[in-house]
Amino acid sequence: MAREHFADRLWAAAEAKRSQVVVGLDPDLALMPPEIVAAAARSHGRTPAGAAEAIAQFNEAVLDAVAGLAVAVKPQIAFYERFGCEGLGAYARTIRAARERGLIVIADVKRSDIGSTAAAYADAHLPGAGSGDWAPAEDFHADAVTVNPLLGSEGVAPFWRRAADSGCGVFVLVKTSNPSSKELQDVSCEGRPLYERLAALVEEWGAAHRGRSGYGLVGAVVGATFPEELAKLRSLMPHAPLLVPGYGAQGAGVADVRGAFDAQGLGAVVNSSRGVIYAFRREPYSESHGLKDWQGAIRAAADDMRREIWEATHGREKGKGAKRG
Amino acid sequence: MAREHFADRLWAAAEAKRSQVVVGLDPDLALMPPEIVAAAARSHGRTPAGAAEAIAQFNEAVLDAVAGLAVAVKPQIAFYERFGCEGLGAYARTIRAARERGLIVIADVKRSDIGSTAAAYADAHLPGAGSGDWAPAEDFHADAVTVNPLLGSEGVAPFWRRAADSGCGVFVLVKTSNPSSKELQDVSCEGRPLYERLAALVEEWGAAHRGRSGYGLVGAVVGATFPEELAKLRSLMPHAPLLVPGYGAQGAGVADVRGAFDAQGLGAVVNSSRGVIYAFRREPYSESHGLKDWQGAIRAAADDMRREIWEATHGREKGKGAKRG
Repeated sequence: MAREHFADRLWAAAEAKRSQVVVGLDPDLALMPPEIVAAAARSHGRTPAGAAEAIAQFNEAVLDAVAGLAVAVKPQIAFYERFGCEGLGAYARTIRAARERGLIVIADVKRSDIGSTAAAYADAHLPGAGSGDWAPAEDFHADAVTVNPLLGSEGVAPFWRRAADSGCGVFVLVKTSNPSSKELQDVSCEGRPLYERLAALVEEWGAAHRGRSGYGLVGAVVGATFPEELAKLRSLMPHAPLLVPGYGAQGAGVADVRGAFDAQGLGAVVNSSRGVIYAFRREPYSESHGLKDWQGAIRAAADDMRREIWEATHGREKGKGAKRG
Repeated sequence: MAREHFADRLWAAAEAKRSQVVVGLDPDLALMPPEIVAAAARSHGRTPAGAAEAIAQFNEAVLDAVAGLAVAVKPQIAFYERFGCEGLGAYARTIRAARERGLIVIADVKRSDIGSTAAAYADAHLPGAGSGDWAPAEDFHADAVTVNPLLGSEGVAPFWRRAADSGCGVFVLVKTSNPSSKELQDVSCEGRPLYERLAALVEEWGAAHRGRSGYGLVGAVVGATFPEELAKLRSLMPHAPLLVPGYGAQGAGVADVRGAFDAQGLGAVVNSSRGVIYAFRREPYSESHGLKDWQGAIRAAADDMRREIWEATHGREKGKGAKRG
């Protein structure tokens, strides 16, 4: 697979769409449009197969709404895994549907293990030759994965080696968006917080494979909910693409993510999950669109997020014609 | 589900079988008996379905061999996930087969995420009421899971809360068996290695739900490859069941794991994967049994490991009759 470098692909998509938006696909049957859930329950019962059908159909509608507005989507595999084999079938179907619509897929799997096992996870989630003598399945193959670094270099290397072969990327957890991330990630280790040590490892792991933009294929997950740390980590990892979760429903806004970007307004993508895909349930979109136009609400929320962040990093868009430029 | 406390179940099984052995189910098509792999390839081609069929059949033969000798089995989900939906079907089939044979199943999934997402993973891997309004699938439900603690308490709590409701257990990564575990786990944080901080968290998380034995349902993964740290961590976590990987193929022996046990010779279980399930490929079992009696080799390797560790912690077995006592 002689694809372009992952970071170059990401920034090209960002410039083409004037967008740094990643839409998180975190399916929740209690929040989806009831018509989709009811139809799936009628044809399959309230079984894992019914849940999977509702999830796949909802996601396809979300993808149709955001395909021109988001650079990437980020399915969170846990919400599919809870419905077992059927749920993971819906996960595979969602990845295919996203790629058919030209979207980059960041698989939020946060996998971690010792080297030989991490290689098996890389087989599962990234395309390429595979680590064994029997070709892995393509079901879950994405453009990038999130990885937990607690086991050290051996646990991360199989992912970036595979990514280097296939034009893919790896986002290493450095400072996560949740409040209790501080319990371990902020602990002072040899005079600096652990997340700074993680940041140094990310720069080191990414050094071997940089794209035309200067960015490597090893990026970092840094939560928007910690804006000071985010700006500091941007400067500590000048070659790492940042994946910034926590926007919208988790409480962060455009001012919080500004520090994630470089002088060209690139270098980072920002994820919102519930704030976009369930926009029809919250102000102002519950009022302007509501359940009767839930897909319109999703589109409007994605476009508002896109414009807010783009303007904060590139200056105001010039009216409606701007997107053609 | 009003099942007994996980630790009590684990120690009862250990005493009944005179065993602290966990057999790791890490399927590798290149190491399995060629007859099983060839038959699956004939009927399904070298497809994910063929791989899944070979894996499920091999595992069932392993389970038949070790059911009376191991307290638990530990399927490593990465080796199933690499074959996509079909591979995870074989994972589900393996869990069912293990439970039918009375074995405790420790799902080696090392999942981690923020709270709401960790709850979805708990839905996937542990039985119980589920966190959503639609029942999760039972496909992957095990007796215990391994969990990565990098995201802090919020990422671990959904697992131990679920485990408390369903007589299940959680093993938190504290000091893993791989060489590069030292890069982060050994970093000196506020005057002590990070793994000691993790150990303190494990004791704290487990304090609310202790069984009759005094052990909690939150345990720890501590590699046999670091015997000094293992003995120290045993004393720092007096109420945590230990899951000790790294025995056999990763290089650790009986002297290395001795420090994991309490004065009663309980408190820990020791995992070997490749050293048992591919015993027919290595000395002395390649000689004594070989490929023509590969199931006998697996049984002999599991029983030798069982006896070595049991005798090191409980004194010598009194001849062949001992197991009846």
